[in-house]
Amino acid sequence: MSKVLTSRADDYSQWYNDLVIKGSLADYSAVRGCMVIKPYGYALWENMRDHLDRMFKETGHVNAYFPLFIPKSFLSKEAAHVEGFAKECAVVTHYRLMNDPNGQGIVVDPEAKLEEELIVRPTSETIIWNTYRDWIQSYRDLPLLINQWANVVRWEMRTRLFLRTAEFLWQEGHTAHASKEEAVEETLRMLDVYARFVEEYMAVPVIRGVKTANERFAGAEDTYCIEALMQDGKALQAGTSHFLGQNFAKAFDVQFLNKENKQEYVWATSWGVSTRLIGALIMAHSDDQGLILPPRIAPLQVVIVPIYKGEESKAAINEKAGAIMKELKALGISVKYDDNDNARPGWKFAEYELKGVPVRIAMGLRDLENNVVELARRDTKEKQSVSIDGLPQYVQNLLEEIQQNMFNKALLYRNSMIRQANTWDEFLALLDGEGGFVSAHWDGTGETEDKIKELTKATIRCIPLDNPSEEGTCILTGKPSTQRVLFARAY
Amino acid sequence: MSKVLTSRADDYSQWYNDLVIKGSLADYSAVRGCMVIKPYGYALWENMRDHLDRMFKETGHVNAYFPLFIPKSFLSKEAAHVEGFAKECAVVTHYRLMNDPNGQGIVVDPEAKLEEELIVRPTSETIIWNTYRDWIQSYRDLPLLINQWANVVRWEMRTRLFLRTAEFLWQEGHTAHASKEEAVEETLRMLDVYARFVEEYMAVPVIRGVKTANERFAGAEDTYCIEALMQDGKALQAGTSHFLGQNFAKAFDVQFLNKENKQEYVWATSWGVSTRLIGALIMAHSDDQGLILPPRIAPLQVVIVPIYKGEESKAAINEKAGAIMKELKALGISVKYDDNDNARPGWKFAEYELKGVPVRIAMGLRDLENNVVELARRDTKEKQSVSIDGLPQYVQNLLEEIQQNMFNKALLYRNSMIRQANTWDEFLALLDGEGGFVSAHWDGTGETEDKIKELTKATIRCIPLDNPSEEGTCILTGKPSTQRVLFARAY
Repeated sequence: MSKVLTSRADDYSQWYNDLVIKGSLADYSAVRGCMVIKPYGYALWENMRDHLDRMFKETGHVNAYFPLFIPKSFLSKEAAHVEGFAKECAVVTHYRLMNDPNGQGIVVDPEAKLEEELIVRPTSETIIWNTYRDWIQSYRDLPLLINQWANVVRWEMRTRLFLRTAEFLWQEGHTAHASKEEAVEETLRMLDVYARFVEEYMAVPVIRGVKTANERFAGAEDTYCIEALMQDGKALQAGTSHFLGQNFAKAFDVQFLNKENKQEYVWATSWGVSTRLIGALIMAHSDDQGLILPPRIAPLQVVIVPIYKGEESKAAINEKAGAIMKELKALGISVKYDDNDNARPGWKFAEYELKGVPVRIAMGLRDLENNVVELARRDTKEKQSVSIDGLPQYVQNLLEEIQQNMFNKALLYRNSMIRQANTWDEFLALLDGEGGFVSAHWDGTGETEDKIKELTKATIRCIPLDNPSEEGTCILTGKPSTQRVLFARAY
Repeated sequence: MSKVLTSRADDYSQWYNDLVIKGSLADYSAVRGCMVIKPYGYALWENMRDHLDRMFKETGHVNAYFPLFIPKSFLSKEAAHVEGFAKECAVVTHYRLMNDPNGQGIVVDPEAKLEEELIVRPTSETIIWNTYRDWIQSYRDLPLLINQWANVVRWEMRTRLFLRTAEFLWQEGHTAHASKEEAVEETLRMLDVYARFVEEYMAVPVIRGVKTANERFAGAEDTYCIEALMQDGKALQAGTSHFLGQNFAKAFDVQFLNKENKQEYVWATSWGVSTRLIGALIMAHSDDQGLILPPRIAPLQVVIVPIYKGEESKAAINEKAGAIMKELKALGISVKYDDNDNARPGWKFAEYELKGVPVRIAMGLRDLENNVVELARRDTKEKQSVSIDGLPQYVQNLLEEIQQNMFNKALLYRNSMIRQANTWDEFLALLDGEGGFVSAHWDGTGETEDKIKELTKATIRCIPLDNPSEEGTCILTGKPSTQRVLFARAY
């Protein structure tokens, strides 16, 4: 079988694109910057969404749905927000088409111009806080813990499948609280939900931290984030949780009568993760043969491939495989039996490796005579002969072992890629070497941060939440610093 | 407690609006024609979506996601489709905003005009069939059984919450087949899925039928539908399933190599239901006190309201209620304990009636002493004293009984509202009386159908699938007819 993917060593970026397309996760579409999420990729997203949705509900949140369109004037109401989001947007200016009077197909009806343009939501703080004004009168209406699963559009100039597309799918939580303390607590609670989801389900270790002022969400008082490390040494922001203070409440005049019977502005948070997580998942784990998917979110956990010559042996294998399938399904394991006659076993093996199915079971007639199957795990590519007696339980344990092994491997790598730099030269050498997170002193100013970004393309990914105090001097300016921060080049 | 809703007798239309808003299902938004689906309404939609999604997957379908935007030229490619959908659309013409040079907020950047305008999808046949061209080469790639859950936009001039909004949520299935027979079979299979869902989960009886040519989906060879009847005697189309022939395959040049090694155009279906179903649900069952929700899709199936004086009695009731809650949950029943001290029991009773919770359990101290609770069912408003021993099982059976009772009641009503008219005067008398479906002869022409619509506002809802042949004469023209069809005024 010919090599399907560009190797990571040859061209990491091309490897990623090959994998997304040949692994049947997504495809480019006829609309610039928009992707088609193919059934296999969407099944992965459904699994991720369902686990997250459960975690949101367990922490008291409910779902709702707000309009796709935002009146242009709404974007201007919060001073910082407009700077961040009123840029590359899809703008709806008309509401009708008509036949071209010159007979050239259809054209926009010039009579059907909207009085005020509508923006396709790049994020929904404005339309939601405009709605919350009607929903919140008293402290009894708080907290309001609402999440939305939706599509959003940001007109990115340079797009990459999953990582940066004009349209993407995400969830955005928007909560309203009676006190600052409660809102900050919510912000951190959701950061924790994200971190647990990414680590426990996606098997990707993350650093929890807070962004610098430069990197804050437009309109936030504080932006918390989880940062992951990809195999090429670049960081990827996997989720953000924002403490919005009273900024949106003031912009949209959302006040409540507090317990002391006084009007007060409401405190806000927002938090989101998107289909970008699929990009993180791919780049954290996969190899030159294809995807490696963690069992807890893999659309298909086990595939059984029969190896036979002639109808008689096929019938014998079919029967045994049917029994095993039934037992696996009873344990809640998703399993497919691929007895398609149009493809040879070797082709199928490569195909399921490409698709990242965690466990492959091959069943030949001689195996059956010996009461064994050949079992291959995708993460380590180890093969072993396993007795059919107790196979389902064995597979169940193995899936859990693969999940843990994937996390541990990613964690070891990530930890080995957090390095300290104490001078500018050390800093450059690390960034230009293997990359990874560079822990370094910084003088705390936005100017220095900008300058470092300009010189190296590295940004401050975060100030870790558990960061120790440490006296030092800024790697660029030599000015005093009280703590190290994490720099990296990032997606 | 003051009357919350306009009564149906006073103003059916206002009753509906009151109910949607005061029942916390949805609200108007700041964007003309777009609604906010509130958490309670969205929970209802989630339940409906989850059941439908399971039914789609059981019939072999998978989900995917296609772009929100459709290039304007795509709409023109299928001759009939463009007539139906290239009308009231949201049109994206620009991709950037900028600060107003005159300092007046933000304006559309005139430099950022799209070469080709993008339409916010009103339905996705065009973008999907343009994609299928790359996915389908041979009969081995067929059938392709894909569904999408998405938002769509149709710039309706007159909107009503859930029933007709500019943006709505829906699912759209788009399947590709190697033969006409298989595609027709799929069209009918999905009509059957819709009918079963609406009858078995929403407890709304439907008539399965086929639309006349006039009422067909733009681009379809045949449109099948399920038609429901609302309490005011008007019909509501609850779902449609279209046999698209080879129209979209030809428009987007989607051919496959068949088993005889010949190129052939692919056969297509599409089918969809939307948040409009929530409107049907409300209008089929609810009353002047509020919603009546069928247990199988109610966000909350049981509410327990304690009735106490003083902390001591509250503690005793809390303990007993906790035990009952646990048992109900173990049976998979969703239940809430409302011990909110800020509202009186009578207020709570009215609130849960308004919200349509199927079963209400009131627990007072004297009840507990007698080992009973007071149980009220929402559909009939009957109250009864029920022993706490075996209560969970009793409630489980009752929920099923309510589900059946709601369906039977709606079915009796619906059946009583299908009446035959043999003359134009009879036809008018029925329509202007109680309404409902009028079964009448029609000469089979679009002209007559249009004329009847113009004169009476009644349309042919469908030709039922099991329609018997019957000789007769058209109620309008007196021309010969071979079967009756169902007319009604409709939402």
